[in-house]
Amino acid sequence: MSITVVGSVAYDSIETPSGRRERCLGGAATYFSLAASFFTEVRVIAVVGDDFGPEQEAVFTSRKIDIRGIERAAGKTFFWEGSYLENLNEAKTHNTELNVFAAFDPKIPASYRDSEFLFLANIDPVLQQRVREAMPGVRLVAGDTMNYWINGNRPALLEVLKGLDMLLINDTEARMLAGNSNLVQAARAVMSLGPRFLVIKHGEYGATFFHGSDKGKTGERTFRAPALPLEQVVDPTGAGDSFAGGFFGYLASQPELTPGVFRRAMFYGSVMGSFACERFGTERLQQLSRPEIDARFEHFRELTHLD
Amino acid sequence: MSITVVGSVAYDSIETPSGRRERCLGGAATYFSLAASFFTEVRVIAVVGDDFGPEQEAVFTSRKIDIRGIERAAGKTFFWEGSYLENLNEAKTHNTELNVFAAFDPKIPASYRDSEFLFLANIDPVLQQRVREAMPGVRLVAGDTMNYWINGNRPALLEVLKGLDMLLINDTEARMLAGNSNLVQAARAVMSLGPRFLVIKHGEYGATFFHGSDKGKTGERTFRAPALPLEQVVDPTGAGDSFAGGFFGYLASQPELTPGVFRRAMFYGSVMGSFACERFGTERLQQLSRPEIDARFEHFRELTHLD
Repeated sequence: MSITVVGSVAYDSIETPSGRRERCLGGAATYFSLAASFFTEVRVIAVVGDDFGPEQEAVFTSRKIDIRGIERAAGKTFFWEGSYLENLNEAKTHNTELNVFAAFDPKIPASYRDSEFLFLANIDPVLQQRVREAMPGVRLVAGDTMNYWINGNRPALLEVLKGLDMLLINDTEARMLAGNSNLVQAARAVMSLGPRFLVIKHGEYGATFFHGSDKGKTGERTFRAPALPLEQVVDPTGAGDSFAGGFFGYLASQPELTPGVFRRAMFYGSVMGSFACERFGTERLQQLSRPEIDARFEHFRELTHLD
Repeated sequence: MSITVVGSVAYDSIETPSGRRERCLGGAATYFSLAASFFTEVRVIAVVGDDFGPEQEAVFTSRKIDIRGIERAAGKTFFWEGSYLENLNEAKTHNTELNVFAAFDPKIPASYRDSEFLFLANIDPVLQQRVREAMPGVRLVAGDTMNYWINGNRPALLEVLKGLDMLLINDTEARMLAGNSNLVQAARAVMSLGPRFLVIKHGEYGATFFHGSDKGKTGERTFRAPALPLEQVVDPTGAGDSFAGGFFGYLASQPELTPGVFRRAMFYGSVMGSFACERFGTERLQQLSRPEIDARFEHFRELTHLD
């Protein structure tokens, strides 16, 4: 089944202990759609400027990603500059230029309307809600958000959460959203706001899947996927979006959403996040093959397997 | 097979968001030996003062822990006071009184000398080395240390590491000891100092087992055990020592140290660490049963199991 994703397509200038890259193609929707494209058909809704050309288009189309929903506006594409010099787990933002994104009003191509899966990547919750409402027929809606919106536009975010089946956020975001430092209690509080499935990402330590349950018993519907301890993290930008793409892409590729499918989806998410870190920007995702993905999946399984 | 452990037996005054306890029985050797006692025979080497009486002895002897190596000295038992009010993952130390520990000179009872496993809990590396040298016949030696010794007496610590088969430390300690923030690279650097097995504990995210290999290939000999996401962490004091006790206790209980045994040991370590956090001090470990341990082991297996 196909996924429609709305989110940012951007240029990123990134500095890490491994080096520096100027204006590489990035943005949550880019990482998400590349990662998900190894599992299912993906359609993107975004806006770009005049500086987005055939070379950038090809990054999507060579992975058969539908970009009819990427609007071209007059002006420059969204730009982000950041570094990870002191802490590879947390970006330090040096510059953000919204550019054409400032006036973004998502338009959904008619050809996208039969998508059964919808992913609302990390953008203004007002825009997330607009897309959500424009696609009432989807079967499963997942979303992401960040500290900026949790603190900056909580009312709009709460509206979005009501309409989500699933939320994917990191530890800090979960604790901030719930106002509770205990992860299990925070998870329950977040699920009470709407999403019945919750994925909390722990960076280099993997991720935990929570499924809301009436029983209220801890652990029963909880699943934890490890991350691969990586020899070298070249650039962590987009790792979380790539996790989401692998996770949601795998779900969308399956005929039925059984507990076993969710578990494997967590592993595929972790696998895609680990690949994303191996080179700058989307370089690794662009040169990836499905056999490499499946080999790493087996590696991850082995990593936590008990006889 | 039996384990001899040398380390601290102490009184701890602890404050956490769940409340406060004055002078409860603690110390690394106490948590370690209680946790290990569910798997194998344990013998303790430590020193206590006049304030250590029959009630405290009973905590050990009711678990059949051999305390002939706990020396009674004139003065007060080692005392630690700390809190976890802002961050449950890291203790804030308010007071440390070494008391009888200041002049501790470990004496090993003749009846301990046939122990096949030796655990050097977190104490002055000079004392660790003395015990290590006094027990040359042991089959497997593991140890722990902390930032205080890594920074404060690195030469003595490096001597200890040369004689260790296995080291159990946390993320921060591994990075500090190696001078490298990448965990895989740090693990390799630490193993080059002596221990061929390394367990790096990640607090609430579990732990990773590294086994030195000539091949130098990442991940091949790596194993990750999850921690249980806990609904309520009452008191994290001793969780790491309880992990070590469960891990090493299970190893000592097995006829052969196969890769599968190491994997299960990691899970038992994680299980014992999770129980330790459920109540203040050693309260939970004192009231634990082997069936409860095995039930949680199965729960942990389920938590990361892929069909």
